[in-house]
Amino acid sequence: MNPQVVNNDPAYFAELVSQGDLDAAFEVLKELHAPDIAERIELLEIGEAQALLDRFASMESAEILVELDEEFRQLLLQEYSGKEIAEEVIENLDSDDAADIISELPEERKREVLSQIEDIEQAKQIADLLTHAEDTAGALMATELIKVNQNWNVLRCVKEMRRQAEEIEQVHAVYVVDDNEILLGTLSLKKLLTTSTKTPIKNLYSPKVISVKTSQQDEEVARIMQKYDLVVVPVVDELGRLCGRITIDDVVDIIQEEAEKDYQLASGLTADVEDRDSVMKLSKARLPWILIGMIGGILSSKVIDYFGIETNPEMALFITLIAATGGNVGVQSAALVVQSLARGSEGTNIKERLQKDLSVGLLTGIACSLLMFGLSYALYSNLALSLTVASSLIAVIIFAAGMGTFVPLVLNKLNVDPAVATGPFITTTNDVLGLFIYFTIGGLIFGAL
Amino acid sequence: MNPQVVNNDPAYFAELVSQGDLDAAFEVLKELHAPDIAERIELLEIGEAQALLDRFASMESAEILVELDEEFRQLLLQEYSGKEIAEEVIENLDSDDAADIISELPEERKREVLSQIEDIEQAKQIADLLTHAEDTAGALMATELIKVNQNWNVLRCVKEMRRQAEEIEQVHAVYVVDDNEILLGTLSLKKLLTTSTKTPIKNLYSPKVISVKTSQQDEEVARIMQKYDLVVVPVVDELGRLCGRITIDDVVDIIQEEAEKDYQLASGLTADVEDRDSVMKLSKARLPWILIGMIGGILSSKVIDYFGIETNPEMALFITLIAATGGNVGVQSAALVVQSLARGSEGTNIKERLQKDLSVGLLTGIACSLLMFGLSYALYSNLALSLTVASSLIAVIIFAAGMGTFVPLVLNKLNVDPAVATGPFITTTNDVLGLFIYFTIGGLIFGAL
Repeated sequence: MNPQVVNNDPAYFAELVSQGDLDAAFEVLKELHAPDIAERIELLEIGEAQALLDRFASMESAEILVELDEEFRQLLLQEYSGKEIAEEVIENLDSDDAADIISELPEERKREVLSQIEDIEQAKQIADLLTHAEDTAGALMATELIKVNQNWNVLRCVKEMRRQAEEIEQVHAVYVVDDNEILLGTLSLKKLLTTSTKTPIKNLYSPKVISVKTSQQDEEVARIMQKYDLVVVPVVDELGRLCGRITIDDVVDIIQEEAEKDYQLASGLTADVEDRDSVMKLSKARLPWILIGMIGGILSSKVIDYFGIETNPEMALFITLIAATGGNVGVQSAALVVQSLARGSEGTNIKERLQKDLSVGLLTGIACSLLMFGLSYALYSNLALSLTVASSLIAVIIFAAGMGTFVPLVLNKLNVDPAVATGPFITTTNDVLGLFIYFTIGGLIFGAL
Repeated sequence: MNPQVVNNDPAYFAELVSQGDLDAAFEVLKELHAPDIAERIELLEIGEAQALLDRFASMESAEILVELDEEFRQLLLQEYSGKEIAEEVIENLDSDDAADIISELPEERKREVLSQIEDIEQAKQIADLLTHAEDTAGALMATELIKVNQNWNVLRCVKEMRRQAEEIEQVHAVYVVDDNEILLGTLSLKKLLTTSTKTPIKNLYSPKVISVKTSQQDEEVARIMQKYDLVVVPVVDELGRLCGRITIDDVVDIIQEEAEKDYQLASGLTADVEDRDSVMKLSKARLPWILIGMIGGILSSKVIDYFGIETNPEMALFITLIAATGGNVGVQSAALVVQSLARGSEGTNIKERLQKDLSVGLLTGIACSLLMFGLSYALYSNLALSLTVASSLIAVIIFAAGMGTFVPLVLNKLNVDPAVATGPFITTTNDVLGLFIYFTIGGLIFGAL
């Protein structure tokens, strides 16, 4: 029943291609879905990929191209003329995918392809889409949609919808506009089918429609669609005129990328790297945070040097414990803030949050402190050392919790991605300051006892 | 045009409620969408919330209930009889939402509500949905869908679809089944409208349909829907019989939760906590990782004690640097692996990955080592110390990169969530082992010079 299960062995496909049996390889691909076909084609030489792609009808090969990895697609498209790209690829795609593919081409090729699109209206729409700033709703939307005028009656509306629907693959919603193309609301198919043909649309549509502006950030669009469980959202310009629509499948990737970005920042990776990237690229993405960590390490050495480890060398034993605990607590606090900011929770009252996080810090600090007092004394029977570790732990934990909460909130106010604070940055800061607290308290206690 | 903008001030609404003017408060809510209404109602006393909710038509109040926070909903539902819940809430919801709400009720109430549902067929469907294991496609799906038999012709098909569509809010797809309810494929509305009414469905449908099994994990369903850009996916049982469908809006939350879970694990939070949770709950979620970090700290102290810091107390200066660098590098490596596993990348060849990550480690290690040799010598003019730091850095970085790659891969093979490895676990391990390397090398170098 599920044909993609039958021929799902990539090794079998690879063997067919290596034997030069492209006919049989094509028969295998034909049974698969575009994303699976793209996965297999990406592993081939450009020439082989092209030969296989050309066997598909242009409708299908366009869909496969959309699914290919960007780099591979660019290489592959170099093999085709501007005219071929316009006719075989662009004209078979929705405007959003078409604009994406054209935007990846070199400037000269862009103009060449656009000028070869037969339907002037389509070429204009794509050119318009290319003007929107990256990462905005305008750059994400497609222009294919069904719209009807509020002054039409049901009969005219159905007729127009049929005409418009011919050019559109999937109907997600019917939008109602006025004579100036201002978006007024949506129309349910149910109402349309159950009302007399002479009823004017203005009496039928629902004005409760959520829309986004072309200039809105795509992350915000994602948040809105997610909050309101929308499958599709209309996009309007600054005047409220309907320009396009965004479907959820494009937004799902943004939601995931956004979450992954936070994760990468928290893990100390500066660029969007994957483990299949080159050793050089990976090393470059990793070095900045390692270096920040090392600067922290040098500062820590200065702190230790300043207090003079020779006086009480046994204090060296718990340097790692103090630094690690401060780092761990700080990252936890920062992650909670980042997550609640990412969820778009309102009322980020800094004072209230700090109070709460400091209470959590106090509670965990006391627990850890008592535990460590007992453990360290059992291990080393050094009262001054145990007192130092226990009392500085409370201070370090409360301090780290405060920093972890405060820093991302401030970064957010300054319009810097607060997730930066969950990475080695907060660990490093807390390392240095934690040691400062530890040695200061240690100096007092060892001096007094 | 966008009504939710007009009355969007939560403070105004709160004021109306506190003045006891529920009529005016209701007028405000009426203009909002269900998720926004739920947000405002959650901040009220249960009595006030109930009074406002009761003013809505049951269709709307059911939708609002679905959007409420689980705890608040449970409190609110205690105010209603089983009959009221069945008639006002459950009968107005899609089966998936209905089953979710019933599943939260105490056992006794569950039976009470189910028995009060008027439509026996609906009650049976919901009871069936409740039998599926949590986090599977079966627990996520809704049973409302449009299905037609392959032996019907277009005319009968359209008639049946109209009848079925009456009970369904939104038509996502038309599924074709055989006499045994086995899913065969999907039917496009376009084909249905453009073909002669006598054509049998078996000549029209597309057999290239992606489906999931009731027993499949919801994370896998999310991955499939995301990969194939699906807005809706049909769910079949072990025999291939069509049981229900899952829409993308339910899956978007899973995709985000999954990504957030990795992030929480990497940040050392064990439970799914938010910063609005209680101080006690937050402390409990944070303690485990802090304690693991402290165990690491104690082990580190034993390492330092074992090598005897008194012999070369200046080595204490770079304890933090060595530990922090090992931790940072390990987390980076682990995050790359976790991410590529989450993306479902196939061919996780452990040996190949290790080789690559070790190359990255060697490259970054040499860079850091040279830099630190210069810096530490400039700061402390101690050749033995600088040599120790520089040579152990290379070893620590390569070692940490290897651990960071190896541990999550092994955890994954053991079916443990590999994201566990990106948290304090890997930092802690690398702290201890990093210090071991540092002091071993230090002992050799200080002994030789």
